[in-house]
Amino acid sequence: MATSDIVKAIAFNADGLIPAIAQQHDSGEVLMVAWMNAESVAETLDTGQVCYWSRSRQTLWRKGESSGQTQRLVEMRLDCDADTLLLLVDQTGVACHTGRRNCFFRAVRNGELVTIAEVEIDPDELYGA
Amino acid sequence: MATSDIVKAIAFNADGLIPAIAQQHDSGEVLMVAWMNAESVAETLDTGQVCYWSRSRQTLWRKGESSGQTQRLVEMRLDCDADTLLLLVDQTGVACHTGRRNCFFRAVRNGELVTIAEVEIDPDELYGA
Repeated sequence: MATSDIVKAIAFNADGLIPAIAQQHDSGEVLMVAWMNAESVAETLDTGQVCYWSRSRQTLWRKGESSGQTQRLVEMRLDCDADTLLLLVDQTGVACHTGRRNCFFRAVRNGELVTIAEVEIDPDELYGA
Repeated sequence: MATSDIVKAIAFNADGLIPAIAQQHDSGEVLMVAWMNAESVAETLDTGQVCYWSRSRQTLWRKGESSGQTQRLVEMRLDCDADTLLLLVDQTGVACHTGRRNCFFRAVRNGELVTIAEVEIDPDELYGA
């Protein structure tokens, strides 16, 4: 089965995009959610390094290209409606642009929205001051 | 902090919706992704039972109302951009309408899209024949 056939099985939305969840393959930690288009899915499958589509910049977004915080693809999964991807990955360093390991660092606890994770890497170190 | 203040912190999309990942709180299994609007977020926080917004039916979708496969909310988390929710839940039975525990039962392995999970409950049992 060629990569193009796998891409054809995906139900991209009207903008040609699909949301992708990145999950650390061994711990089960949900790291982040971003979007992919057909080209980024194909590149991710072919290279084994996760590549998203940046909606704000309208370009391929090779995760970690500038920050070094790359994601190696362990397995790509597709849901029942083929409209969401689950990427089992091995995350180098931190997934979140805030310098936290994952993006889901705010939780509703006792009726308050609280920050539950510390910054591990100064964002200036990730992207330059 | 009132539920309405938490809802105000969420960056809903142009359609007033936000994607929500349901993850089994103890095992880390990613169960499904669905959408929520402000009303379903508020109901979920207030009742502790997960309620989505059905885009196809354009109604509140109280998960498990017809099938019995409910999701008890353990914790709601918000990502850095406030545009994705992570719901830590306790899933009764199966999350997927196909009768599988989770919706991500197709994986790309050795260049093929393969089914990696068995049906646990006949869908006819979930929704009536």
